[in-house]
Amino acid sequence: MRQTKYLLFTKKEIPKNSKNISHQLMIRSGMIKKTSSGIYTWLPNGTRVLKNIKKIIQKKLNKNNFLEISMPILQSSKLWIKSKRIDLYGKELFTILDRKQKKLILSPTHEEIITNLIKNTINSYKELPIIIYQIQTKFRDEIRPKEGILRTREFIMKDAYSFHKNKKSLKETYKKIFNIYLKIFLKMNLKIKIKKVKNGIIGGSISHEFHTYYNKHFSYNNSKNKKSIEIGHIFQLNTKYSKIFNTFIKTKKKKKLIEMGCYGIGISRLIGAIIENNCDKNGIIWPISIAPFHVSIIPINMKNNKKVKIISEKIYYQFKKNDIKVFFYDKNEQPGKMFSESDLIGFPYKIIISQKNIINKYVELKNRKTQLIKKIKIKNILKIILKKIKKKIN
Amino acid sequence: MRQTKYLLFTKKEIPKNSKNISHQLMIRSGMIKKTSSGIYTWLPNGTRVLKNIKKIIQKKLNKNNFLEISMPILQSSKLWIKSKRIDLYGKELFTILDRKQKKLILSPTHEEIITNLIKNTINSYKELPIIIYQIQTKFRDEIRPKEGILRTREFIMKDAYSFHKNKKSLKETYKKIFNIYLKIFLKMNLKIKIKKVKNGIIGGSISHEFHTYYNKHFSYNNSKNKKSIEIGHIFQLNTKYSKIFNTFIKTKKKKKLIEMGCYGIGISRLIGAIIENNCDKNGIIWPISIAPFHVSIIPINMKNNKKVKIISEKIYYQFKKNDIKVFFYDKNEQPGKMFSESDLIGFPYKIIISQKNIINKYVELKNRKTQLIKKIKIKNILKIILKKIKKKIN
Repeated sequence: MRQTKYLLFTKKEIPKNSKNISHQLMIRSGMIKKTSSGIYTWLPNGTRVLKNIKKIIQKKLNKNNFLEISMPILQSSKLWIKSKRIDLYGKELFTILDRKQKKLILSPTHEEIITNLIKNTINSYKELPIIIYQIQTKFRDEIRPKEGILRTREFIMKDAYSFHKNKKSLKETYKKIFNIYLKIFLKMNLKIKIKKVKNGIIGGSISHEFHTYYNKHFSYNNSKNKKSIEIGHIFQLNTKYSKIFNTFIKTKKKKKLIEMGCYGIGISRLIGAIIENNCDKNGIIWPISIAPFHVSIIPINMKNNKKVKIISEKIYYQFKKNDIKVFFYDKNEQPGKMFSESDLIGFPYKIIISQKNIINKYVELKNRKTQLIKKIKIKNILKIILKKIKKKIN
Repeated sequence: MRQTKYLLFTKKEIPKNSKNISHQLMIRSGMIKKTSSGIYTWLPNGTRVLKNIKKIIQKKLNKNNFLEISMPILQSSKLWIKSKRIDLYGKELFTILDRKQKKLILSPTHEEIITNLIKNTINSYKELPIIIYQIQTKFRDEIRPKEGILRTREFIMKDAYSFHKNKKSLKETYKKIFNIYLKIFLKMNLKIKIKKVKNGIIGGSISHEFHTYYNKHFSYNNSKNKKSIEIGHIFQLNTKYSKIFNTFIKTKKKKKLIEMGCYGIGISRLIGAIIENNCDKNGIIWPISIAPFHVSIIPINMKNNKKVKIISEKIYYQFKKNDIKVFFYDKNEQPGKMFSESDLIGFPYKIIISQKNIINKYVELKNRKTQLIKKIKIKNILKIILKKIKKKIN
């Protein structure tokens, strides 16, 4: 991507009313922009990160035979009246009247719809266990939206639902998904704390929350009251919803209520959490598989130096051709601005191209995390970057 | 994908109250399921198609320097009061009161938000032209939702917005996008009719609709009143929204109002339209780049024939390893059921594995569209399928 063709939206100033480093950095690095209380637009940098996160999760789930579907955002309130959750959720539930004065809800979760779907399609225990998931926008009318993307009214969730012929099968799948969650979060450089908690209004018997930590250097204020961020929650629901919606399966001997589990990951919140865990005073330090771009090309004084321009363009072209996500500073800006912005956005690598070095056929390769600089022969730079990226991506 | 691990949700019966072949086939082939009036769940087969469609469009747009973002579904009604569209949309607009009694709307489109985003981030004509897009769920409270996915209350749109320093630049981009649309629709095997139309309540000067046709054999009823399906609409909005929201740019000489265009594709509706254009009496005939799976493996009497099972498993494994999207009928069903279901779903190819042929080291390859069957040496089947798929995909 060329800077001249992109919208960076970066900011030097720390936004007011943001006590969290992740909130500050997401605004400053041009990932998100607030549009209403607890509601954000995802800008190009944020959208790229969001897509990478979705891809990592989808790949892992698909590999483990989770089936992807997409349930509607608008649900009839009837199902929620039947499950009694319309009252239990209370004011956190966004409700809406359509032109025929029928009440609809903006989905915060989908247990009612999925149970009815399974009821109408699965009859035999032979078709179980099955795990279905979606990645979707969800809604909760938070009384006090705060901390940027960590507590919003409109957010993105991965929600999965499993169905079983008995408790033993549910417990096996639950354990399997528990371990998949740990692997996903570890891949994202997150320190994880597990909490065994009560199931609450969602129902069922056993549930675990997956938490990670706020940044202890830069997010003081929140750490005092609330020491961790919930990024995942899994539940053994047992027959709570199958009982409400009469969802039976035939086993060898008799008809019985289907056993159910549900499994959430807060995708948008996860991004804030990753930043809390992966940043320094200069900005974000993205794991390479999540970064909006792998590398930035920083030409020094390109305007007055034809050779710098030629080498920069050549490297950019080579990288693009090899599917490296590369960001090319092609606007002749001051080196200081390009360096600090690259640190802020969190490109894992910078390639610095200056007259001094290209005379000796070198470029400089700077690692965002370690801040170490290496001189690399121009002819080797593609190979080295490919190796670094492949090593982490695959 | 193994049949034993998948949820097909297919139906033999033609659903009642569906006069359109695309609606019937989407229900019957397990792509969608109705949850409320004009609201659907996308099942595994439908979700796979949806993702392929999105991928084709995104690839084309990204290549042409469209920048992807994601704007919120919930918008403050203030912006819509300012643009006066809250009244113009009337009852088609879903509105909602939050817990603080503030009115929000469920976005049917995003001109207001994007204009405000640009206003706060772009200052100079040098940063233009720019084209921004998103693929997102949108809402319209249709008085009579009908024809399945063709007219719903919750739907998926690709909406793009372009910004320009002058009318000339807007016209150039408009023409470019016009041609990109034609290429996208042609890639999807659609016959296209262009209509030059009035801009209506969205505003601006010039606009064109992209239409395609209902199936003339199987969708009689609708064809009488409404002979085509609108799948895309592009607008030269000029300064309508920049005037309302005071969105200026600095040019060399003076400050002036930014010029704007907007460009929609109805993604979910497009899928219905593709089916209207690509089906026969037995089911859907997917273009290979859109199909939920490229090929189905159909073993004949696998239960009583070990060799059929071994060869089927081997081909399945080979295909998976080579990223062929393969569906394996591993449930020992009757041949007739597997054939008719494969036709209904619209796998572009079937591989039929029977005892008679494997003795002579053959399998049968059947083309969904032509219904022609070829005998292929088992050792060549991977190469041949890879060639057919690559040829169409790349």
